[in-house]
Amino acid sequence: MRGVVLHAPRDVRVEQRDDPTIVEPTDALIRLSATCVCGSDLWPYRGADPVTRPSPMGHEYAGIVTEVGTGVTTIRPGQFVIGSFFASDNTCEICRAGYQTSCIHRVGIGGLGAQAEYLRVPLADGTLVATPDVPSDDLIPGFLAASDVLGTGWFAAVAADVRPGRTVAVVGDGAVGLLGVLAARQLGAERIIAMSRHEPRQKLALEFGATDIVTERGDEGVARIKDLTGGLGAHSVIEAVGTQQSMMQAIHATRPGGHVGFVGVTHDVALPGDELFFSHVHLHGGPAPVRRFLPELIDLIWHRRIDPGKVFDLELPLDDAAEGYRAMDERRAIKTLLRP
Amino acid sequence: MRGVVLHAPRDVRVEQRDDPTIVEPTDALIRLSATCVCGSDLWPYRGADPVTRPSPMGHEYAGIVTEVGTGVTTIRPGQFVIGSFFASDNTCEICRAGYQTSCIHRVGIGGLGAQAEYLRVPLADGTLVATPDVPSDDLIPGFLAASDVLGTGWFAAVAADVRPGRTVAVVGDGAVGLLGVLAARQLGAERIIAMSRHEPRQKLALEFGATDIVTERGDEGVARIKDLTGGLGAHSVIEAVGTQQSMMQAIHATRPGGHVGFVGVTHDVALPGDELFFSHVHLHGGPAPVRRFLPELIDLIWHRRIDPGKVFDLELPLDDAAEGYRAMDERRAIKTLLRP
Repeated sequence: MRGVVLHAPRDVRVEQRDDPTIVEPTDALIRLSATCVCGSDLWPYRGADPVTRPSPMGHEYAGIVTEVGTGVTTIRPGQFVIGSFFASDNTCEICRAGYQTSCIHRVGIGGLGAQAEYLRVPLADGTLVATPDVPSDDLIPGFLAASDVLGTGWFAAVAADVRPGRTVAVVGDGAVGLLGVLAARQLGAERIIAMSRHEPRQKLALEFGATDIVTERGDEGVARIKDLTGGLGAHSVIEAVGTQQSMMQAIHATRPGGHVGFVGVTHDVALPGDELFFSHVHLHGGPAPVRRFLPELIDLIWHRRIDPGKVFDLELPLDDAAEGYRAMDERRAIKTLLRP
Repeated sequence: MRGVVLHAPRDVRVEQRDDPTIVEPTDALIRLSATCVCGSDLWPYRGADPVTRPSPMGHEYAGIVTEVGTGVTTIRPGQFVIGSFFASDNTCEICRAGYQTSCIHRVGIGGLGAQAEYLRVPLADGTLVATPDVPSDDLIPGFLAASDVLGTGWFAAVAADVRPGRTVAVVGDGAVGLLGVLAARQLGAERIIAMSRHEPRQKLALEFGATDIVTERGDEGVARIKDLTGGLGAHSVIEAVGTQQSMMQAIHATRPGGHVGFVGVTHDVALPGDELFFSHVHLHGGPAPVRRFLPELIDLIWHRRIDPGKVFDLELPLDDAAEGYRAMDERRAIKTLLRP
């Protein structure tokens, strides 16, 4: 099959890879209807994460089951399924508490490479959720978004304790931040302040439910959030970048007793204990347990109550993956969908 | 009046200070029935916090109201009252959310010096809570504990989301950690693991409700907690020290999705973002909003359902404050009560 392989920073190639096969009896194979490039894929693409050998890329997927192992009992060939970037058994104590990305048997999908024609999904019964029927083509981008960026934005909003009546600020205008806006709206937030200085992203934030746009960053951005919240800060802040500046911006923009939900994959971040102590914020985040939210998200998409697929503003054939990476790296595209 | 003044590291003196007077119409004056030395007083005592000029010491207090300002409406002379180490209006939006130590009008009691015969308490109506009647002498240590260490241990347990059925680990065997054990018991924890290698403190932890004692520290301590929790870590961890080692020990001892409540005043702590991200813990803490809990704590003490005064294992006249500091510094005493 054809699949995306990163050979070195900025050296993305689509090349022939071995077709995946059932390895464990709990595996399923799927034929991808669509896959995509993640903001976190840009870390190794830019050389910020080391690339020591040719690496299959991609961890977001939706598609049709083609084969299941002998131990798979609920997932069947022919179903259209979505899964998260970590396979999980969904039965251990950690999964049952809703933290499937820390499942005691978790397997990272990234290492398997979902930017490809086919994918082996471990722990299929625990990992995959099927749609009620095979969806029409226009719904596929939305379901693909549920695999990571929607689920991650949703977790960030839940981790930030978004509720009806709350004021929410969103740090980061990538796909996750934008879908954090959508999640906050669905969870009933009264006011949603999107922090963005990019016009197309501002526009999408407003479409997804943002009520205010703040273009300032850092201390100035914090001051604007304070201005908009009677000097107190937001009740809930979604952090969807993962840098020292964005984390501190999120913590400082939150009122005492408020909540920060952080889902940007942290790089070289060290949180000063004294600032955290005196900020009085709640801090929670990490790799989003997307599996927890998949049934609800699939239902919302299936019934066309939300349209998270709008974050894909570039669609390319899988063979043009290199251009998809370039467009996101240069911020010409918010998120690239790839059709195998 | 006589009061404790720190002149330089380890130079604690009891000397003549001006009697406090009503300054603002919202002030009250109290004659202290008892005051005490806090673990956090040891930071400047040891020179870890700078001492640039003679500083009145102390922020824990319980006593009889002697005078109130013209703007005070609920607190009356003759009442026995307890307040927290931050005066708060208890009416602003932050107070109403339960974060009185971040009240927009807060005033630190530390700067006023509660290790003395008399104390001016700002924002008396918001800050002070009266007991049903003047208590008998044997209850005074308990009420004094409510002013800080009990309220702080209680907040840590609430911040760590302690609930019935949960397994709780407590990092730190000072007065706050020990009262965190007591709070966890009251909040219904099933298993409470106290981390301590000091026999008298282990004994008190067991009296307060600990079910297990772990003497190991750092990575070995974390490994012991994991052993005791099926490899997963505790649901809730109370951090009551405030060092890099204790914070990381607390985070590592918590299961994914679990909660760390941290109340040790942080000194030179920097939390690595990636470890926090992948730990999947909830982190919350800071200066305990003791005022939130005072009515409930006073009720429990008044009806002798809890006896937090047991943390005072040394009682001295105010004039012997220097020996009280020394005994705590050398860990000969858990906590020193001073009688003015």
